[in-house]
Amino acid sequence: MTTSNRTFDIAVLPGDGIGREVMAACLELLSASETATGGPALRVTTHNAGAQYYLESGEALLAATLDACRAADAILFGSMGWPDVRFPDGTEIIPQLDLRMEFGLYAGVRPIRWFPGLPKILTDERARDIDFVLVREQTEGLFYARGRGEVIDNREAYDTMQITREGTARASEFAFRVAERRRARRGSARVTCVDKANVFTSMAFFRQVFDEVAAKHSEIGADHAYVDAMALMMVKKPWTLDVMVTENMFGDILSDLAAGLIGGMGMAPSADIGDTHALFQPAHGTAPDIAGQGKANPCAMFLSAAMMLDWLAERHDEPQLEVRARLIERAIEATLESGAAFPMEFGGSANCADMSRAVIAALPDAM
Amino acid sequence: MTTSNRTFDIAVLPGDGIGREVMAACLELLSASETATGGPALRVTTHNAGAQYYLESGEALLAATLDACRAADAILFGSMGWPDVRFPDGTEIIPQLDLRMEFGLYAGVRPIRWFPGLPKILTDERARDIDFVLVREQTEGLFYARGRGEVIDNREAYDTMQITREGTARASEFAFRVAERRRARRGSARVTCVDKANVFTSMAFFRQVFDEVAAKHSEIGADHAYVDAMALMMVKKPWTLDVMVTENMFGDILSDLAAGLIGGMGMAPSADIGDTHALFQPAHGTAPDIAGQGKANPCAMFLSAAMMLDWLAERHDEPQLEVRARLIERAIEATLESGAAFPMEFGGSANCADMSRAVIAALPDAM
Ligand SMILES: CC(C)[C@H](C(=O)O)[C@@H](O)C(=O)O
Ligand SMILES: CC(C)[C@H](C(=O)O)[C@@H](O)C(=O)O
Repeated sequence: MTTSNRTFDIAVLPGDGIGREVMAACLELLSASETATGGPALRVTTHNAGAQYYLESGEALLAATLDACRAADAILFGSMGWPDVRFPDGTEIIPQLDLRMEFGLYAGVRPIRWFPGLPKILTDERARDIDFVLVREQTEGLFYARGRGEVIDNREAYDTMQITREGTARASEFAFRVAERRRARRGSARVTCVDKANVFTSMAFFRQVFDEVAAKHSEIGADHAYVDAMALMMVKKPWTLDVMVTENMFGDILSDLAAGLIGGMGMAPSADIGDTHALFQPAHGTAPDIAGQGKANPCAMFLSAAMMLDWLAERHDEPQLEVRARLIERAIEATLESGAAFPMEFGGSANCADMSRAVIAALPDAM
Repeated sequence: MTTSNRTFDIAVLPGDGIGREVMAACLELLSASETATGGPALRVTTHNAGAQYYLESGEALLAATLDACRAADAILFGSMGWPDVRFPDGTEIIPQLDLRMEFGLYAGVRPIRWFPGLPKILTDERARDIDFVLVREQTEGLFYARGRGEVIDNREAYDTMQITREGTARASEFAFRVAERRRARRGSARVTCVDKANVFTSMAFFRQVFDEVAAKHSEIGADHAYVDAMALMMVKKPWTLDVMVTENMFGDILSDLAAGLIGGMGMAPSADIGDTHALFQPAHGTAPDIAGQGKANPCAMFLSAAMMLDWLAERHDEPQLEVRARLIERAIEATLESGAAFPMEFGGSANCADMSRAVIAALPDAM
């Protein structure tokens, strides 16, 4: 394998609460793994943004920061938002939603996989085989209503869900690409369209567009499930799930449910991917209850960084970044499986710094 | 206790698929329990409706049946709908949604309780203490869009969510009444408003109206959760949940999730309650995969009938109907705990008729 000397610019937004803590740990791990594998360098620039920054500066996300994100090769994001820190109109400070819209990050990719060593949440032994990917459409759906809803006469309020052909097609195409990669690894793959086509016009349209996309990917299986039935299926037989694509709001609910199946948000990475930009962020929030105490589980942040490396590797044809992503994953797996460090989130004694140290220490053996 | 000679008229709609099977079993149990307790009689009138009836007659729900439901003291409902049986415009045949609107059945009451003998789905021992009630608002929310959505130029589709002050207030009041009853039994109670107030205007309005109602019930605790966080909480710590009230679509998703926590839909009863009418129905559907084979678990249907008896008891001040409801519940509990019959749904060998026979046989000891 040839060694590349390229450098990739990463815009880093730690944000608020435990976002800052897990990001600090993650940057150490990224740097240690870069030393271990060699190859492309990451040049990290950190930007202040979020609810605390809003309190200090009067702005949640500077235009300059947005520009830096636009210019960077990828965005690495901690978490943002804080209880009771709000804009004058009462809405919460959640710049991650603005970034999704601003950069057209239409595919919210939320992989859920059980790792040996993790607590078992479900009694069924097959829960060890949980390994699925939820693709959440992220630029329309019910979230189209954000900033557009209205209350009439303090008597009734309306919010409108939008489903477009283009939006549904690109999210569905993305899901089939994910399935294609899984098929290469596992022999077969299937994409499930999760909707509520039995009740809503927009959801029947979502299903129709999905079916059109599915017809172009006959090598991948395709099926449908109503969102309520899928919520049940996730609890009853999550090991049978493969790739799913769904509307924005449904995806928000199902992805938290799914994270619960593997123990909680501390193991759930996510990627917000568009055609030109991408942002990588743990699925958890700022966790005000434990923020500032160094207790957070940084694994979701680490796994999100690995997703970033994979995305850069594919986009820029830099296979060594993929090697680095696998290295990080294997080091996390080894740490959890051996119990070298076990997160406080799951009743272990390892705080954020302990987890980071242990995963870094596991890198050489994971090579 | 005085014995009443009153008769209550029950409109029975078995519907499609396993709805018919569990309803037949339920009517036997209702009759046996009436013999056992004495007191008010139920006069049952059965009406044909649903997808199969639509195929035979060209109508899914006759006006005469609607009138009979309106005139009855309560409606007992199996399940309706069948894959690929659709109205000419492509929508599914789901008269239960029409009935909710027609009779203003605004409170979808979905109690979730683990019974000794049931399979344990979650590894945590505290899952034995799962005992909560989800109140789903059922006349507006996203379902307001049903029949109103539109596809424009085959390019984009819109569906609008409606939240009214009146609708939110009555669902919230209902939830506090449920909590009041639980407080009488358990010493304390709490209602959680489940919304997405951080993103949607309508959901912030929902929370605001909930808070106004909560202020009138200071003896009951009140708090809030975002719907995604609640989906996670249901998997992580469902034993900490008490009473919840939420928007129609959110409630649809969360109630299926919740049923999964106690093994599946076969143990999940539901009641659709309005100010003048009420309908009682197992939370499961017609289950085309097992319909016609007599394999369905009738317990959710039985528990729904018990909810009907409770509702009639309270409404008409007939405490003996409440006695009958408790008798049915205890007979189900005894059957499952002793293993006298164990549903095929959970890997047991008891089919629908076996379950019904065993629960009826358990009535005398449960008195
Ligand atoms: C913070 C919140 C607005 C956000 C969302 O609802 O999308 C979060 O829950 C997520 O899943 O990324
Ligand atoms: C059949 C379907 C339309 C219905 C709903 O979505 O309300 C069902 O899922 C329910 O929960 O009662």
